[in-house]
Amino acid sequence: MPRRDALPRLAAMQPTPSSTPPTWLDLAADDPFGIDNLPYGVFSTEGTAPRVGVRVGDRVLDLAPCAEDAGMESALVWRAETLNPFLALGAHAWRSAREWVTEILVNDSYRDAVEPHLLPLSDVTMHLPIAVADYVDFYASEHHASNVGRIFRPDSEPLTPNWKHLPIGYHGRSGTVVLSGTDIVRPCGQRKPPTADAPTFGASQRLDIEAELGFVVGGSTDLGEPVPLDRADEHLFGVVILNDWSARDIQAWEYVPLGPFLGKSFATSISPWVVTMDALRAARVPLPGQDPAPLDYLRGAPTEDGASTAYGLDIDYEVEWNGTVVSRPAYRDMYWSPAQMLTHLTVNGATVRPGDLFGSGTVSGPAKETRGCFLELSWSGQEPVRLGDGSERTFLEDGDTVVLRASAPGPHGTRIGLGECSGTVRPARTP
Amino acid sequence: MPRRDALPRLAAMQPTPSSTPPTWLDLAADDPFGIDNLPYGVFSTEGTAPRVGVRVGDRVLDLAPCAEDAGMESALVWRAETLNPFLALGAHAWRSAREWVTEILVNDSYRDAVEPHLLPLSDVTMHLPIAVADYVDFYASEHHASNVGRIFRPDSEPLTPNWKHLPIGYHGRSGTVVLSGTDIVRPCGQRKPPTADAPTFGASQRLDIEAELGFVVGGSTDLGEPVPLDRADEHLFGVVILNDWSARDIQAWEYVPLGPFLGKSFATSISPWVVTMDALRAARVPLPGQDPAPLDYLRGAPTEDGASTAYGLDIDYEVEWNGTVVSRPAYRDMYWSPAQMLTHLTVNGATVRPGDLFGSGTVSGPAKETRGCFLELSWSGQEPVRLGDGSERTFLEDGDTVVLRASAPGPHGTRIGLGECSGTVRPARTP
Repeated sequence: MPRRDALPRLAAMQPTPSSTPPTWLDLAADDPFGIDNLPYGVFSTEGTAPRVGVRVGDRVLDLAPCAEDAGMESALVWRAETLNPFLALGAHAWRSAREWVTEILVNDSYRDAVEPHLLPLSDVTMHLPIAVADYVDFYASEHHASNVGRIFRPDSEPLTPNWKHLPIGYHGRSGTVVLSGTDIVRPCGQRKPPTADAPTFGASQRLDIEAELGFVVGGSTDLGEPVPLDRADEHLFGVVILNDWSARDIQAWEYVPLGPFLGKSFATSISPWVVTMDALRAARVPLPGQDPAPLDYLRGAPTEDGASTAYGLDIDYEVEWNGTVVSRPAYRDMYWSPAQMLTHLTVNGATVRPGDLFGSGTVSGPAKETRGCFLELSWSGQEPVRLGDGSERTFLEDGDTVVLRASAPGPHGTRIGLGECSGTVRPARTP
Repeated sequence: MPRRDALPRLAAMQPTPSSTPPTWLDLAADDPFGIDNLPYGVFSTEGTAPRVGVRVGDRVLDLAPCAEDAGMESALVWRAETLNPFLALGAHAWRSAREWVTEILVNDSYRDAVEPHLLPLSDVTMHLPIAVADYVDFYASEHHASNVGRIFRPDSEPLTPNWKHLPIGYHGRSGTVVLSGTDIVRPCGQRKPPTADAPTFGASQRLDIEAELGFVVGGSTDLGEPVPLDRADEHLFGVVILNDWSARDIQAWEYVPLGPFLGKSFATSISPWVVTMDALRAARVPLPGQDPAPLDYLRGAPTEDGASTAYGLDIDYEVEWNGTVVSRPAYRDMYWSPAQMLTHLTVNGATVRPGDLFGSGTVSGPAKETRGCFLELSWSGQEPVRLGDGSERTFLEDGDTVVLRASAPGPHGTRIGLGECSGTVRPARTP
């Protein structure tokens, strides 16, 4: 029987091994939350305060007491009720922490010290992982933007002239970013069908989803100092699945000229586990191609491993509507890269703060069965979607549940799970 | 000589008198920061932490130690580094606090206890008064929206069809809201003149201001629960002068279809003193008129004093460019009321949080000399503005300083000062 030590301090750590590390944890080889994943979230157990944990298999590693046992000062950031203090520490700290967590879960000699801090997932309540600072939503799928253009502006070119020159984005409401599982109250508002003379007020009749990837940002910058493309990774901490609930009728009436507002701001759901960009290294893929070449500040450069700083991500999505998978979008089809979005966001000198969140925009591919919103999937309501129970849908009905799931290739033939992001539609509240 | 007591607890307070209260403070009758104003801000003195203060004349009342001397629990919220904890307490607490502050500044028997906590304005450093939660910018001036429509979309109707049916708004970047006096680095970005084939990258050539009123929001609501118009005042704490710095060339290229983004997000300045809505009661005026009548949820109702819940505000602005007053916009010309904006913002069930901030949009009147931005004032650069030194301007040059000032009628023939919001343009930083 191996000797078991007290927990090591960070300073004493070994570098992460380059092959799949064996672990003393009882994990299936194909567990999407295996030792290559290790996403961060915020959890509580009955009677305890929310704090930071790492998911491994069906358990949650309670980081703060582990770090306290090891005499580490970083325990403090993991006692926080959000990931923000940890995000503030920056990329170097994130990498060290990942190496330390990997080490204590891999090295059998730490087993006795760690096991008391592994809690069954079924015993914990998850919380919103970040206090969202600024929330920006991009529009990075050429297929989605083209489809929406055809539907919303049938008399114009599908893509606006700026679309291939810059990643179009807008600010959303950070106060209504909610955790997966939160009920979505059908929003009321003004809508005006093209044939009507005046708008009417009432519950949205065209309630939709948008399957997106959400990027969680860390570190901070000074006002006036852009983040160049080759340093964007220093601020990209990780990803969540994001559902940008959208009321298409409210949006269509309000969005010219200043963009979407109430059609989006009633709720945005995110999955509870933030999968780190480090866990997604094996999922990096080249972009599908950018023509015309973007301006210099958005142009990728070769990295040490022969890839580009403007990389895409090979993430598979599943959109489930009342138990029926109705679409399988693929993130590798996205036109603009994560680093390009972050760099564009700051090129005017805007700061980033720990807890900033930006969405990719709807993940849609070229084929109908890869469209990431129901506006596209039902082609604005003209082509109903058949569910497993034989019923048909165009937009969301009260009581409908949507679950988004996603996963990516891991470094050793495994899959990296992003978990799921779900929500159920509740009836509008009439004033 | 009157007897002087220790400070009273809130419970022992008298109602605010209905005529101008005499005060033991040495204040000129026309001081814009007289006893009828009492705005809140966050200040520090050398070697001390930022905390909440009230401005009276050229002095700052250090609230926390006053409240501590009086044995009040509310001292805690005034020890905070932002107004947010105080804002969280809601409208009832704000009113009680205002009555208490008035009482201790008016009643001579508290003079000895209060005077040690009155600090000269020249000895304090001001800080951003709120941690901005969500920042929304409206577009509530018909004159501004019409002028911008004529300039940006010369081939269309000046106002979009939705404009008179709803207060158009969009979310801005809360992380780049800065205090008056903060230097503004000229932003870089993409711009494409209509005659060019492709966009180019560089420093904005059309840097502009927007003279706005910013509304500071307090209290909080539950997701899915709109704030009806007749309860909007419960969430409207006060106002600041707001300068929505705008890069018109960046904005023009990016804003279709999802609205302004980098053309606005580099900086938004606000004045340091939050003037409460209570201090602006005498400045309430009827709106200029709304035709067509808005939908029910936006329609004002008569209040006890015969006014409307959808009231306007009689605030005079002064826009000073390098020392020359170039415009005098009037807030009473605004089409949409503060309560209508807040109600619209939440009608879809979006929550409000303490520290939310919304801007009115540029305050512009019908006459040229009342236009609140340089895009309008110079008619997109075609009509240069002459400054006092004989120089001419269209948009901002490096080194230019803009100061916005504002004031409103007070309850006793006095003026309520909003102070000023200033910024100086610094050269772009080239990557």
